[in-house]
Amino acid sequence: MKLAALLVPDLRQVLKEDPDQLRELLDEIHPEDLADLVADLDPEEAAELMARMPAASAAPIFERLEEHEQEEIVGHMAPESVAQIASEMEADDRADLFSALSDDVGDKILEKLQRVDPEAAEEVREIERYPETSAAHLMTTRYVSVSPDETVADALLAVRRLAEQDDEPIYNVYAMGKSERLVGFCALRDLIRATPETRLDDILRTNVISVPPEADQEDVARKMAKYDLNAMPVIDEKGVLLGVITIDDVIDVLAQEQTEDVQKIGGIEPLDVPYFQTSFIDFIKKRGVWLVVLFVEEFFTQTALRYYDPVFEAIKGASYYVPLLISTGGNSGSQSSTLIIRGLAVGEIKFSDWPRIFAREALMGLVLGAFLGILGFARVLMYRDQGVDFAATVALTLVGIVVTGCTVGSMLPLILKRLGVDPATSSTPFIASLVDVLGIIIFVHCAKLVMAKVLAAHAAAALGH
Amino acid sequence: MKLAALLVPDLRQVLKEDPDQLRELLDEIHPEDLADLVADLDPEEAAELMARMPAASAAPIFERLEEHEQEEIVGHMAPESVAQIASEMEADDRADLFSALSDDVGDKILEKLQRVDPEAAEEVREIERYPETSAAHLMTTRYVSVSPDETVADALLAVRRLAEQDDEPIYNVYAMGKSERLVGFCALRDLIRATPETRLDDILRTNVISVPPEADQEDVARKMAKYDLNAMPVIDEKGVLLGVITIDDVIDVLAQEQTEDVQKIGGIEPLDVPYFQTSFIDFIKKRGVWLVVLFVEEFFTQTALRYYDPVFEAIKGASYYVPLLISTGGNSGSQSSTLIIRGLAVGEIKFSDWPRIFAREALMGLVLGAFLGILGFARVLMYRDQGVDFAATVALTLVGIVVTGCTVGSMLPLILKRLGVDPATSSTPFIASLVDVLGIIIFVHCAKLVMAKVLAAHAAAALGH
Repeated sequence: MKLAALLVPDLRQVLKEDPDQLRELLDEIHPEDLADLVADLDPEEAAELMARMPAASAAPIFERLEEHEQEEIVGHMAPESVAQIASEMEADDRADLFSALSDDVGDKILEKLQRVDPEAAEEVREIERYPETSAAHLMTTRYVSVSPDETVADALLAVRRLAEQDDEPIYNVYAMGKSERLVGFCALRDLIRATPETRLDDILRTNVISVPPEADQEDVARKMAKYDLNAMPVIDEKGVLLGVITIDDVIDVLAQEQTEDVQKIGGIEPLDVPYFQTSFIDFIKKRGVWLVVLFVEEFFTQTALRYYDPVFEAIKGASYYVPLLISTGGNSGSQSSTLIIRGLAVGEIKFSDWPRIFAREALMGLVLGAFLGILGFARVLMYRDQGVDFAATVALTLVGIVVTGCTVGSMLPLILKRLGVDPATSSTPFIASLVDVLGIIIFVHCAKLVMAKVLAAHAAAALGH
Repeated sequence: MKLAALLVPDLRQVLKEDPDQLRELLDEIHPEDLADLVADLDPEEAAELMARMPAASAAPIFERLEEHEQEEIVGHMAPESVAQIASEMEADDRADLFSALSDDVGDKILEKLQRVDPEAAEEVREIERYPETSAAHLMTTRYVSVSPDETVADALLAVRRLAEQDDEPIYNVYAMGKSERLVGFCALRDLIRATPETRLDDILRTNVISVPPEADQEDVARKMAKYDLNAMPVIDEKGVLLGVITIDDVIDVLAQEQTEDVQKIGGIEPLDVPYFQTSFIDFIKKRGVWLVVLFVEEFFTQTALRYYDPVFEAIKGASYYVPLLISTGGNSGSQSSTLIIRGLAVGEIKFSDWPRIFAREALMGLVLGAFLGILGFARVLMYRDQGVDFAATVALTLVGIVVTGCTVGSMLPLILKRLGVDPATSSTPFIASLVDVLGIIIFVHCAKLVMAKVLAAHAAAALGH
C-alpha cells in the first residue's frame, strides 16, 4: 500500500507527459502491487493506463483487481481494449470478469472477444453455465496434458511450451486416455526425477483426487487443504478433464468464505466488498435488515415483562435484574452457537452428533450456571433490601438460563444445517435475542416457585386494596 | 472419515494376527486418510502400529496427527522409536512435535534423536528458540540450494536428488552467494523452460519476497496469499536462508487463526483442539472466564437501573422497555465491531483510518437509529397505556443508543489494536454488555429531557405524600 501511495503521483505525471515510458516504469513491480496502484487511481486514469499497456501486461493486473474496480474501469474503456485484455487473462479470472460486468456491457465485450479469441469466448460461455461459487469458476484451462504412452522427455517439452506462453503456475502434467478421459498425473518433481526416456505410464499417479465442475468452492478449498494438494483437476461425469484449480485461487476463496461467516455471526448480511468500498446505502440495507429482525424479536421481551407485571410489582426491584440475567443467557448461547457453527464449517461436527452435543452442552450449562448462580446469590445479598429468597430466585434463574442458552445455542445451528440453511445465520445476536425472551419466562417461573408466599401475600393485599 | 471407520476393524485384526501384512495394506492409502484412521484407534493400538511401520512410512502419518493425538501416542511408545520417526519428519513438523510434548518427554526423545540424527536434533533446538506461532515453526529446511554460477542442468540434478530423498513439495531452487546469503531463486518451470547449459544467474529472479524467522505466522500467510506465492524463503538479518515455508502449511495456519478469531468474537477463549476433543474441564475454564467477566460487566445494568429508580417509578412500564432498547444498542455495536475486527484481520483497515470510520459509523447509527426510532414510536403507541411523550422518549433513545453502539463498537477494536491487544478480544458479547449499561443511561436522560413535566409532577407528589 505504501508503494502504491508513493507511485501514484509519479504515474499520473508519466501518463500525462510521456505515456510510452510506462512500460519501463512498471516492469520491475509485482502485478499485485501494480493492482494496488491501479485501484488507487481514478477509474478514468486507470482505464487510460490499462488501454495504453500491452494487453499481456495489463491482464495480470486486471485479474487482481476487485470485481467492483474492474466494473468501474471497464466502464471507461473501449470494448475492443477490454476484449484484448480478457483474451490474455486466465480462464477463471476471465469468467469472473464477465460475472462482474452488467449483462449488456458483458455481452458487448464477449462479442468483441469472439472475434479476437473465439476459444476464450467459448470458455466464458461454458464456465458461465455453472454457479459463480462453483469449481468451474476457479479452474484454469491452461494445463499441460500428455498421453500416457509418451515419455518424460515429451512431457517436459510440453511443460516448456506452456511455461513459455504464460505465467500460470504449473504443478503437474495430466495424462489423458481415450476421449480425453483423465487417467493420471505426474508432478513436475516426478518428471525431473525420472530419466527422459521413461514412459509416463510407468510413473503416473493414478490415485487422482478430483472434483466435478459444479462442486462448491468452499468444499474444493477444504479438500485441497486436507490433502495438501497444490492443484486439483476438475472432471465431468464422463471423467473428461475440464480444467485445473490451483492453490493460489483456493486461498482467496477460504479468506472470502471466512469473512462471510464472521459477518453472519456478527449479525450482518455478508458484504461482497471491503469496508471502505461498501457504499453507505449498502451498509444501511445489509445492517438494517438484521437490526429490524432482531428489534422485532426483542419486542417479545417487552410483551413478556408486561404480561408478568404482577410478579414484578410484587417483588420490588426484580425488574432491575432482568438485563443482567437475560444477557447471561445470551452470552452462554453465543458461546455455544459459535462453537457449533465453526465446528460445522470446518467439518469437525456433523448433524448426527446432536445427541452427544445436547448432553454435553446441557451438562456444561448446569456447571457454568451453578457457578454464576453462586456469584449472583452473593451479589443480591450485597444489598440489604433483598432477602435470601430473592437471592435464591436469582441463583436458580441463572442455572436455568445458562442451561437454556447452551442447549438452544448449540441446537439451533444444527437444525439450520439440517434444513439446508447456512448455520452461520443463527448469529450471536439472533441467539441472544431469542434467549432473552426465554430468560424472562424462566425468571418469572423461578420467582413463582421460590417466592410463592410473597407473591400470594401481594396478590391478597391487592385484592384487599 | 468414512474410509477410516470402515478400515479400523480390519486394521485391528491385522495388527493382532499378522502385523507384517500391514505395510501392504497401507501402501495404497493417502497419508491424510491414514492419519484419520490412526486417530480413530486407541492410543496403545496407534502406538503399536506406528512402532511396527518403517519410520519413513510412519513419519508422514505422524506429521498429520493433531498435537494432542501425537502426545497421547508418544506416551505409549519407546523414545527410540519416536526418535526414529522424528528423524524422518519434515523440520517444521518435527519442531511442532517437540512443542506438543511435555518438557521431560521431549528431552528424552531429543537425547535419542541426537544419536540417530544429530543434524535434526540441532534443527529442533534452533527452531525452538522462536515462538511457536512464528515463521521458524512453519519452515522446512529441506530445499534445493544452488550457486548462481551453476547451470540449469546442475540445478535440475539437485532437484532430482532432493526429490529422491523425500516427498516435500519442491517449487523453487534457491541460489546462495557468499556466506550462504540468498541472492535469488528459480521456479521449477524456469528451469524446464531454459536450456540445460544456461547459467542460473542469467535466469535468476532476484526480486525475492521473504520473511524473518520471528515473523508471525498469520502475517506470513497473508503475505503469501497476497502475492500468490507457493513458497516463501525465511531469511535472517544477515540475508542467510534458514528455510522455506510452503503453501500447504500456510493454509492450515489460515484456518487455525480464523477459528481463533471466530471463537474470540463469540466470547470464548480460543480452543486449541476440535470441539469433541476438548475436555469438559477445559470448556468450563475457557467459557467460564468470559461468562464471569461479562456477568460482572452486566452488574452495572442493575446498578444503573437501581440508581435511576425514581425515573422508572415515575414512568409506569418504562422498565419493561429496557431489554428491547439496550439489546438494540448491543446489536448495532456487534455489527460494527465485527466489521472492524474482520477488516483489521484481513488488512483492509488501519488504525489511522479511525476518523473516517468514526464519522461513517456515527452517520450510519443516525440513519439506522432514526429508522428503528420510527418503528419503536409506533410500537409504543400500539398500547393505549402509553402517551406520545413516552413514544417520543423511546424513539429518541433508539437514535442515541444505535449511534453509541456503532461508534463504541467500531472504535473499541481499533483502540485494542493500537494497544497491541488482539482486536477480536472486543467480542460481540463484550461490546453488547458495555453498550447495555450506556443504553440505560441514555434512556433515562432522554426520558428526563422529553418527559420533564411528568417526572417533576411525580417528584412533587412523592414529596407531598
